[in-house]
This record gives sequence, structure tokens and C-alpha cells, in this order.
Amino acid sequence: MHNRNLKLVVEYDGSGFAGWQVQPERRTVQGVLEDAVSDLAGERLGVTGAGRTDAGVHALGQTAHVTCSIDLPADTVAAALNARLPEDVLVRRVEDVPLSFHARYDAASRSYLYLIGLSESPLWRGRRWWVRAELDAEAMARAAGALEGEHDFESFSLRGSEPNHHRCQVLRTSLECEPHYGGMLIFRIEADRFLRGMVRSVVGTLVEVGRGRIVPEGVPAMLEARDRGAAGPTAPPHGLYLVRVTYG
Amino acid sequence: MHNRNLKLVVEYDGSGFAGWQVQPERRTVQGVLEDAVSDLAGERLGVTGAGRTDAGVHALGQTAHVTCSIDLPADTVAAALNARLPEDVLVRRVEDVPLSFHARYDAASRSYLYLIGLSESPLWRGRRWWVRAELDAEAMARAAGALEGEHDFESFSLRGSEPNHHRCQVLRTSLECEPHYGGMLIFRIEADRFLRGMVRSVVGTLVEVGRGRIVPEGVPAMLEARDRGAAGPTAPPHGLYLVRVTYG
Repeated sequence: MHNRNLKLVVEYDGSGFAGWQVQPERRTVQGVLEDAVSDLAGERLGVTGAGRTDAGVHALGQTAHVTCSIDLPADTVAAALNARLPEDVLVRRVEDVPLSFHARYDAASRSYLYLIGLSESPLWRGRRWWVRAELDAEAMARAAGALEGEHDFESFSLRGSEPNHHRCQVLRTSLECEPHYGGMLIFRIEADRFLRGMVRSVVGTLVEVGRGRIVPEGVPAMLEARDRGAAGPTAPPHGLYLVRVTYG
Repeated sequence: MHNRNLKLVVEYDGSGFAGWQVQPERRTVQGVLEDAVSDLAGERLGVTGAGRTDAGVHALGQTAHVTCSIDLPADTVAAALNARLPEDVLVRRVEDVPLSFHARYDAASRSYLYLIGLSESPLWRGRRWWVRAELDAEAMARAAGALEGEHDFESFSLRGSEPNHHRCQVLRTSLECEPHYGGMLIFRIEADRFLRGMVRSVVGTLVEVGRGRIVPEGVPAMLEARDRGAAGPTAPPHGLYLVRVTYG
């Protein structure tokens, strides 16, 4: 019935949303996007995202697709959607893709970044996690490096979420020290897939390493345990950003 | 009567304030600071700032002084004030200074930065000015350089403000291109003093230069004109940050 599939690249400030996924009576990113697309199309349409970010998590480049019959050039669709969207969501780009394209199933990798603030800051409120401790960034980088490669990440997965399997291929990690803005650590991670809560439990674990409570050499045993209790706590959502989704 | 003078270094998100200076029935930074200090001291106290930032302008390091008789170590005062302040204001540091110290009159220089966004961004909403044009950063840097040194800045001063004189010594300027965050220009300026609206009219003028509407070589004639109409428009407040105040 629909003759067209559009890929949307979307930025949002997650502060005002109960996450990506539509939920009854809650303001969600998917919900406001579906409202905008449906209003433009004149019919009720669904928007499918590459990943379901949790409440408070931000995105610089979430990706979604929508099959539709909207008869406008892709750039015009972007402008028309932005005119209908609240100011905390922006469609950065719209492009035509084959009808078979699926934002979630076809994704080859996802990249996230997580901002750890080394001082309190009103200007970074809701944008980074303020950790009140001296952190050993070198130890954290070593621990992060131990996560690279293909591993079972059940120890870093939210209890209660039940995917078919817990294997993920972590393609790269990096930890950058940013001296400005009161001091900040920028953690980046790219993987073929992520389990629910995975980046946040990785970051929570890295901060325990940074505080000296866990040694970097303990990471392989954590992975082998396949038990959420073996890894560190879950970092808060507001430091997390979905940066980009790549396709083969 | 008061036996102590405290210097406060203050960070704030200007979005929710009608500027620094106390005004009846308006939420101001000075107002919430005076409330917090007075509550801690058990008497009504005034807080004097180094500069009066306009509504929407942010600060990383606004400086103020308060003469008082609070009998607590300086670090404890900082913590006690932060416990009383809303989350968009933070006292970064408190230190004892001589009773003669005056945050405004004793300041040797002030430094500001201004963020110009080269793309729209929900995550930078209220934090940078989005300019919808290609900007020639090299021409802008040359125009900024022409402002360095001692000049009469009446052409860059808000009409209606009437200081004794308009001479300011611009100690340095810089313009940095930040490729991340959708592209951003970071303009920095330090001077012995600033007139009302001065940084914003400088930035408005630089953007006109960046768009090719004014040539950098036109800046000296603008200064000589001593007429607000000779310079470019006033940039919006939300891209502006008071970075620091230095004392001799």
C-alpha cells in the first residue's frame, strides 16, 4: 500500500521524554515523531527506531524508518516534520531508502558516548553524570579495552530483559580527558548491538575502576560470570548519548 | 559592623533568570544568591557582582563579594550556600578577601565566550546562537583582531546606557572552529571593562562579516563613528558566557 520508505536521522534532548518507545499516557520521542509524520501524511503512521533509548537518554543521531506515501522531496519532508516537532526533537536528515530497509534489523553498528563530569555544573545539568571522586582515567581506559571483541555481556545487561542471546561484538572503545568545562571524561563505545542498560552498566563499572574499587584486570572474570551482580552499578541515563547508527 | 568579606565565584545557567541584577517581581541571579546568603547569615545581606549579565546570559565564573559576619570556614560557606541554591546556580568557590575588596571596582579584566552554532541542535538549545548561513571564519577572526587594543566602543554599546566614557582596552580575542557538535564557532574576548551589550554587538558584527555583508577592513571606521548604528546588530543573549573575572 505504501510506496516509499524514509530513513530519518534524529537528534533529541532526552530530558523531557519517558524514553524512545511509545507508552500510553507518556511523552515519548517515538510518540511525538509518529504524531508529526501522521499529521504530515494525513494518515496514522508508525515510526520504527534503531534502538530504544531509556528515559533521560539523549540522541545525536538516532535512526528510524517510516513507510508512507508522502509525496514530497526528502528535504521538504525534513523541514515539514521539524515545523511540527517540539523544540527538543530535530530531524537532522531524511533520505529515501529501499522499501525493504529496516532501521533496527539492518543496523550494522551503534555508537554511544557517555559524559562524566568531574565537577558539578548547572550548565551541564541533565547532560552529564557528576562523579564526586578522583578518577584514575588510565585504569578506566584499560578496563574499557578489556571489553573490546566478542563477548557474552549478560553481566552488563538489565535483569528482566530477555534477548535471545547476550553476545555482542564491541568494535571499539575510547576514553578522552577533556580539561575544559570543569573537567570531563568522554567515553565512547561502538558495537554491533547493545543489550538493555549495557552502556550504563559498563560506565558504572568503569567508574568503580576509576575510584580504585575494582581493578581493570577483573573485567574478564566479570564477563565470564554472566551475572549482573558481577559487574558495577548502572550509571544514570542523562550522561548517555546515542551518537550514530551505521548500516552495511 | 561586619567583620568579614567573602569572594564568591559563581556558575549559572542564565535561561531561567531575568539577568543578574535584582529587580522587583523577577527571578534574578543576584536575588537568589542574596536569599541564600541571608538565610545562612540570619540577616539580610547584599551581594555585589563584578558585572551585570543580561537575561539569558550564562556564567562559568561570575564573581561577587558579600560582607558579612558568618562564622564558618569558607568551604563550608560554599557547601551551605549550594544547599540553599536552586540547581541552575552553583557557588564554585568561596574565599576570604580583605574587607576593602570590591568585586566590581577591583576587577582588572573580564573574559567572555560566545558560542555560534552552525547547525540547529535541540541539545544546544538556549546554549548557543544558531546562525543559518555559511560563515567565513577567517574574515571574522581578522575583524575581531581589529578590535584589540584601546578604543572608544560607543558604536558597540547599548543606546540608553550612559557610562562616564566608552574607552575599553581589549586585551585579546580569538575565534576557534569546533568541528564537533554539528559545527560551532567559539569566540573569546578579554578586556579591562565592557560596556552594556558590547560582546553581543561585537558578535553580531562579526557574524555580518562572516556572511560577507561587512568587510573586516571596515572595523576601524565603525569604531571611529561612535554610533551604535555604524556597527552590526546585537547577537542574542543565550550564546554568551561570562567566563572569568581577574583581579590585580
